[in-house]
Amino acid sequence: MSPLIDGLQYANWSEKVFRQMRDGGVDAVHVTITYHETFRETVLNIERWNRWFERFPELIFQGRTAADVALARETRRTAIFFGSQNPSCMEDDIGLIEVLHSLGLRFMQLTYNNQSLLASGCYEDEDTGLTRMGREVVAEMNRVGLVVDMSHSGERSTLQAIEHSTRPIAITHANPHAWHPARRNKSETVLRALGKSGGMLGFSVYPHHLKGGSACSLDDFCEMIARTADLIGIERVGIGTDLCQDQPDSIVEWMRVGRWTKLKDYGEGSASAPGFPAMPEWFADNRDFGRIAKGLRATGMSRADVSAVMGGNWLRFFETSFETSFGAKSGEKPKLNRAAE
Amino acid sequence: MSPLIDGLQYANWSEKVFRQMRDGGVDAVHVTITYHETFRETVLNIERWNRWFERFPELIFQGRTAADVALARETRRTAIFFGSQNPSCMEDDIGLIEVLHSLGLRFMQLTYNNQSLLASGCYEDEDTGLTRMGREVVAEMNRVGLVVDMSHSGERSTLQAIEHSTRPIAITHANPHAWHPARRNKSETVLRALGKSGGMLGFSVYPHHLKGGSACSLDDFCEMIARTADLIGIERVGIGTDLCQDQPDSIVEWMRVGRWTKLKDYGEGSASAPGFPAMPEWFADNRDFGRIAKGLRATGMSRADVSAVMGGNWLRFFETSFETSFGAKSGEKPKLNRAAE
Repeated sequence: MSPLIDGLQYANWSEKVFRQMRDGGVDAVHVTITYHETFRETVLNIERWNRWFERFPELIFQGRTAADVALARETRRTAIFFGSQNPSCMEDDIGLIEVLHSLGLRFMQLTYNNQSLLASGCYEDEDTGLTRMGREVVAEMNRVGLVVDMSHSGERSTLQAIEHSTRPIAITHANPHAWHPARRNKSETVLRALGKSGGMLGFSVYPHHLKGGSACSLDDFCEMIARTADLIGIERVGIGTDLCQDQPDSIVEWMRVGRWTKLKDYGEGSASAPGFPAMPEWFADNRDFGRIAKGLRATGMSRADVSAVMGGNWLRFFETSFETSFGAKSGEKPKLNRAAE
Repeated sequence: MSPLIDGLQYANWSEKVFRQMRDGGVDAVHVTITYHETFRETVLNIERWNRWFERFPELIFQGRTAADVALARETRRTAIFFGSQNPSCMEDDIGLIEVLHSLGLRFMQLTYNNQSLLASGCYEDEDTGLTRMGREVVAEMNRVGLVVDMSHSGERSTLQAIEHSTRPIAITHANPHAWHPARRNKSETVLRALGKSGGMLGFSVYPHHLKGGSACSLDDFCEMIARTADLIGIERVGIGTDLCQDQPDSIVEWMRVGRWTKLKDYGEGSASAPGFPAMPEWFADNRDFGRIAKGLRATGMSRADVSAVMGGNWLRFFETSFETSFGAKSGEKPKLNRAAE
């Protein structure tokens, strides 16, 4: 049986949430540890995680390699893999990529809605594609084993990241634009290119990404997954719930506004609905993955395919994504990054 | 045959120095990467090391576990283990201990000559022993697998560190005070307590620690090693050259003065001889370890004992010092640090 893996969560972490992960049989979760925080602030966030790992060792531990997913299953715990939703944590210093990987970072978005030093976000009017630094950073991320995540990036930037990256990239939490035309959802062009390149799409349960929002039905969600699998390949899709459980609305404001404006930016929300939207009734927390699996079976998907979508595909992606392409073990002379020559 | 391990160096690193490590058959070196630098500045130093590892992968790689010493021998490279000579890198935050260990730090001095937040340096008039924070930090260092190094600490602080630490500690670079009464050299009381606790002493070749300074003879140095081994146990001693090869005198000034005074402090030097002293003629660089081994044989020491002193003892110490006492692999619930409860 394949493991159960969620491709993205950003909960208000607590013993309750960790126990629900265990109750739901979740083997691994990619968690967001930082948005607009500097490197130094991100280290403080890692310290908070270290204290959770220390306090709840029977529930969670830090995942660093794909093998940690198997270890999680053996020891009935959840492996927590770190990710960043913006490159703020690497500041303007390509050398921090390897440092962050040493600290366990396994995913990094090149942008979060806005222009970054590396690429354009999906809310900008102009999409630069990958910048000069963006191309260098993608190469460095490929070298050290840090996954390029383009969930919040613009179309052109995303296509260039897929093209430029020598390792498959991920869109950890988004749905097809054709199903629900939100800015954050992805065009057929992007989805096809992602699938062809061996990348992964994690389907989001965040209401702003759902047709009908919070009222979206489980059937509709699962049917959309099945059709997208037909389009880009069953082996290219997984779940990335974007579960923001128990977060106060001040957090969604930080996610959207960071320190880039003194005004309010409502992102996917609006002045009349600025907070976190209500989750669909069929997915409230980590105990509800079984419902999605059942819903997928109801679309006519085989048991094996459901298992692949619920975690098998992410596991295979982890296996080729997190290891450095150099290092002590290989003993080989690595291909030098130009910057180091 | 045992590996060849040096317990401390702080050279002006270059391809030349790394090649000399290979020419000298040095399998592992504990290198100082930081003195008075903050955490953020220490990360910049790690980035410099990462570039050296990237540029010279056929010569060096970062050592993280004792097994990396064997890997170094198999692949004919030198494993570089990181250390700090002062706790500046952890600032005032116990959470940074685990972060620094994740980045590969394997040794940390609790003090460098002066009082720190943790303990007293050997140049202070008053020795507080371990401070309240010092006791907490030693426990945390024990938990994560970061060696307590008391080379530059005061007598009382050192004895308390030996007593309080649940893992054996190290004095990576110093000699017996009875042989040469420098402030940095250690009393018989300290050496006996260190030996009894399973700790390690690395003998320094830095001229200020040598009887007769730069003119100290190899015979005299090796005889001192043999007599110290008689005193504290042959299994408790190794080499810690304190080699500061190719460093400009501005570096010894940074080591002594940091940012704690606006005046000059000459440390072990003096106004008339403020710079680095000339090395003894029998130890100029990493190609000269064979001379020490020969000198030890000439004192009547057995081949096996010489081999233990030249690296076998450090290797055994590494084997029990660097692993975390918790973590993903064990699956056991660790003893909580009080701070996390």
